[in-house]
Amino acid sequence: METSESKTRIIRAALDLMSQSGLSGVGINQVVKESAAPRGSIYHFFPGGKLELAAVALGEAEQGVGHWFRGVFDPREPLACKVESLFAGAAENVAASGFNKSCPVSAVVLDIDADSEKMRAVCHRIFSTWRDMIAVGLHEVPEPERPAVAELILATLEGSLILSRSQASKDPLLRAGKNLGNVLAGRFENARA
Amino acid sequence: METSESKTRIIRAALDLMSQSGLSGVGINQVVKESAAPRGSIYHFFPGGKLELAAVALGEAEQGVGHWFRGVFDPREPLACKVESLFAGAAENVAASGFNKSCPVSAVVLDIDADSEKMRAVCHRIFSTWRDMIAVGLHEVPEPERPAVAELILATLEGSLILSRSQASKDPLLRAGKNLGNVLAGRFENARA
Repeated sequence: METSESKTRIIRAALDLMSQSGLSGVGINQVVKESAAPRGSIYHFFPGGKLELAAVALGEAEQGVGHWFRGVFDPREPLACKVESLFAGAAENVAASGFNKSCPVSAVVLDIDADSEKMRAVCHRIFSTWRDMIAVGLHEVPEPERPAVAELILATLEGSLILSRSQASKDPLLRAGKNLGNVLAGRFENARA
Repeated sequence: METSESKTRIIRAALDLMSQSGLSGVGINQVVKESAAPRGSIYHFFPGGKLELAAVALGEAEQGVGHWFRGVFDPREPLACKVESLFAGAAENVAASGFNKSCPVSAVVLDIDADSEKMRAVCHRIFSTWRDMIAVGLHEVPEPERPAVAELILATLEGSLILSRSQASKDPLLRAGKNLGNVLAGRFENARA
């Protein structure tokens, strides 16, 4: 029981640190400090060390964020509303962190070097999962175009998170959600079921 | 002469390292190694150390990339072509680095913590410069909407760079440039001069 709680605390701390500063933030010392877990327990649960912990923690984000994406892309809402909701939700999250945390996957991608090359496949897998979860809800978009439109939404979301964080303001996310939602609705409205 | 060359080498090395892994990549030891400049010369040119060097190096990117944006957003090209060219150029750049370098400003934003808080204003300024350089070329877009549309293009570019880097492929950038160019052209075609 206590064991499983420690593991959860370690994973949460790692995810939190990666949301702040990517792989460079997730050193074992920082995880020990942040999680209040004994150092030995980190190596016990993650014998592969930092990169194994990072991959497991990002896998938690894959599920958690993916669940949120799936909820937002409810097929009964119009396309523009879904896109706007997604970006507004992201704006709330980044603001709640004082603009000090954003997407851990993007932060890790921008830290990949020769030593952490194996994180690339993990991040690619997560972005693909998220893209597919968005695509499922794009009922107004012709089926063959859904993956590319979902990818465009995901890319714009990731970039807008960075712009919002850089100016400590929700505005870039809110504006991008509104504008992308509008242009996509303009394009695909006629195909709406 | 030699002095000015050393300074240029130091700045280029710092920019290169930040394009790989943000602020965490730009330690003084790494810059010494990468630039082959004497350690003393780094502190001579940048008495404020790492963050001063990072700010100066990002300022170089602000000008260089800004010059490229200005060239791409030539008013004589249709909007969809301009957007597609921008993303295709970015795809060439990231591919040329073996998908190991992307935008240094995004990489720095995703590393900001309490110790590097002052980098936030530097990154915000650079994104604003870039947005304005894109906005100037959006002749098809009604003037009041140009800054927001330019911001959407910039956000999508930054996010697509991350997606491309994560899968070591130009495709996410190429697809996003084509799709964003198309939906924007569809929306603003009637307002074209």
